[in-house]
Amino acid sequence: MSEANNLRVVLRSRPPGLPTLDNFGLVEDAVPEPGLGEVLLRTRWLSIEPYMLLGMKGAAPHSPKRGLDRLAGLANLYLGGVQLGATMYGPTISQVVTSRNDRFAEGDVVVAYSGWQRYAVDDGSTLLKIDNDRLPLTAWLGVLGIPGFTAYVGMKRIAQIKPGDTVVVSAALGPVGSVVGQMARIAGARAVGIASGAEKCRILVEELHFDAAVDRLAPNLPDALASVCPGGIDVYFENAGGAVWWAVFPLLKEFARVPVCGLASKYSGVGKDAGEDRTMEVLERILLFRIRIEGIFVFDHWALESEFRRDVSAWVADGRVQFREDIVDALDAAPGALISVLNGRNKGKLLVRVTP
Amino acid sequence: MSEANNLRVVLRSRPPGLPTLDNFGLVEDAVPEPGLGEVLLRTRWLSIEPYMLLGMKGAAPHSPKRGLDRLAGLANLYLGGVQLGATMYGPTISQVVTSRNDRFAEGDVVVAYSGWQRYAVDDGSTLLKIDNDRLPLTAWLGVLGIPGFTAYVGMKRIAQIKPGDTVVVSAALGPVGSVVGQMARIAGARAVGIASGAEKCRILVEELHFDAAVDRLAPNLPDALASVCPGGIDVYFENAGGAVWWAVFPLLKEFARVPVCGLASKYSGVGKDAGEDRTMEVLERILLFRIRIEGIFVFDHWALESEFRRDVSAWVADGRVQFREDIVDALDAAPGALISVLNGRNKGKLLVRVTP
Repeated sequence: MSEANNLRVVLRSRPPGLPTLDNFGLVEDAVPEPGLGEVLLRTRWLSIEPYMLLGMKGAAPHSPKRGLDRLAGLANLYLGGVQLGATMYGPTISQVVTSRNDRFAEGDVVVAYSGWQRYAVDDGSTLLKIDNDRLPLTAWLGVLGIPGFTAYVGMKRIAQIKPGDTVVVSAALGPVGSVVGQMARIAGARAVGIASGAEKCRILVEELHFDAAVDRLAPNLPDALASVCPGGIDVYFENAGGAVWWAVFPLLKEFARVPVCGLASKYSGVGKDAGEDRTMEVLERILLFRIRIEGIFVFDHWALESEFRRDVSAWVADGRVQFREDIVDALDAAPGALISVLNGRNKGKLLVRVTP
Repeated sequence: MSEANNLRVVLRSRPPGLPTLDNFGLVEDAVPEPGLGEVLLRTRWLSIEPYMLLGMKGAAPHSPKRGLDRLAGLANLYLGGVQLGATMYGPTISQVVTSRNDRFAEGDVVVAYSGWQRYAVDDGSTLLKIDNDRLPLTAWLGVLGIPGFTAYVGMKRIAQIKPGDTVVVSAALGPVGSVVGQMARIAGARAVGIASGAEKCRILVEELHFDAAVDRLAPNLPDALASVCPGGIDVYFENAGGAVWWAVFPLLKEFARVPVCGLASKYSGVGKDAGEDRTMEVLERILLFRIRIEGIFVFDHWALESEFRRDVSAWVADGRVQFREDIVDALDAAPGALISVLNGRNKGKLLVRVTP
């Protein structure tokens, strides 16, 4: 494989449950030529995120966004899923190699949505130029990127946290969950994280200053969670589903808010839910406790973007929001990295360094 | 039984499922004497509402309200449930017989929360004096009472209906559901009612001007509902649960709002939900379609009271909100009336005429 060629990771088949390496293919072809108004990008960093499995499974059941320019293009990219044979989608940090667009110069560093490839041509409409050099570049894929924005939207628009709230977040050491917990602390709320394994729990408490952490794999998760939430739960930021949901559910208090951001247990599609249907029990608790449950899709809330970047970059700068990264090298490691994320093996935001 | 005595319906035992006449007792005793600051009320009309079954089953799992004066007293009355041996609770239209309270004079007509009895002593703190004689008195227990207010809160605070929305409501001919549908029409939305039996469906469309009505007992409810909601459902006002929920669920659109007001199928406690657990399927749809589900308890939204009475009394006056009543005579008919409501046999707001 020559560095002078393009290299792309494509979707070869759709996974019924969790993906395997067989679902991906590696294609080497010519570097594309930018047309008038376009730029040629070289990928430096690639972000690996769990929702990419949804894209692998096909188009989302949303209606396409219309008439929102940059935002519409971006949302539709995500909503459309990945076609068989097409390049895997996803955000990157890229550098402009050649520009035929007045808004960009050679050498500019941008957040792009150009996917799992070494080079890409882009019309510039969805590019965000990074001109803040006080923060590490990779922050723009994590705390200042879609994951951080997702946390911000969920906490601001749906959770509406108040001082004294007990906020529980699952997949707490992930790039969304870790921002959720730290935002809870900033707002004067109590942050309780759920993560798999003792080491992740240790990091949550010792390094990210969560008030408590619970091991998802604990022998009795409901009791373990109840013991660190003696007054119940005001906000549950849902990234997990399955057994974690059922541990949280009986602890939800009056007026609890539940932003639904992800369902890792469901993404995997492994095993059906066991036991008789409990949906009416959930609806009854929603009624009696006046609970609000709402789904988050960050592209619905783009109006918050500048407020988000202002707040979170300030919090990162003053150390109140910390972030952790797991880095793997080279584009061909991306499929394995996604599989690793979906199996909960990462201990921070997973990034692929495409260009050293 | 002498008219000169008090007569009360008390709770004799808690029903495991739907109540039976055996759960109630009738007690005749002396008319109580009002103390200083109190009034003696004679009940004219008694309202029968499905949630009374919850009170019969015991205290609600809410935390008591504090420091909200009239509202706190009222909310706690409902939240506390009915003690064994105590008088059944509920709103009434009553007349002041004797007043030892400066705010009320003999002959005043009030909305009271004095329960299933002929006479009651009240300190006046929760009484609402009725001084509007343009509307029938009984409206204050229905469209202008807790049922109408519940519909109003759900539509204003949770559903936030927009012109063009398709609004589906279950138990549509009940006093809550009929206001929901008529408010939808007033807002320029499409109103689809679900009710049991062809006659109720006819009334919804012909008399209350719903755009469509679907028989809950139709052989294939999901298909029947889908056929009158070809573009999907924007708002589902949940009064039913069970099979009605599952007919609605696959039709919920992006950004659908689901105020949860009641679960008639669950109140009855008859039969468990069949089949495997579908909770994760519900959460996934909430996520992918960014659906909001939220419970309503009218006492949480008392600040809307004056706006509610202004709007709904205007709508009743100009005929845009119509209401239907089913009237039964005499206090000892109240238990049978509640059983009838819980079995969906009423075709309008059920009222007991206590004093002819």
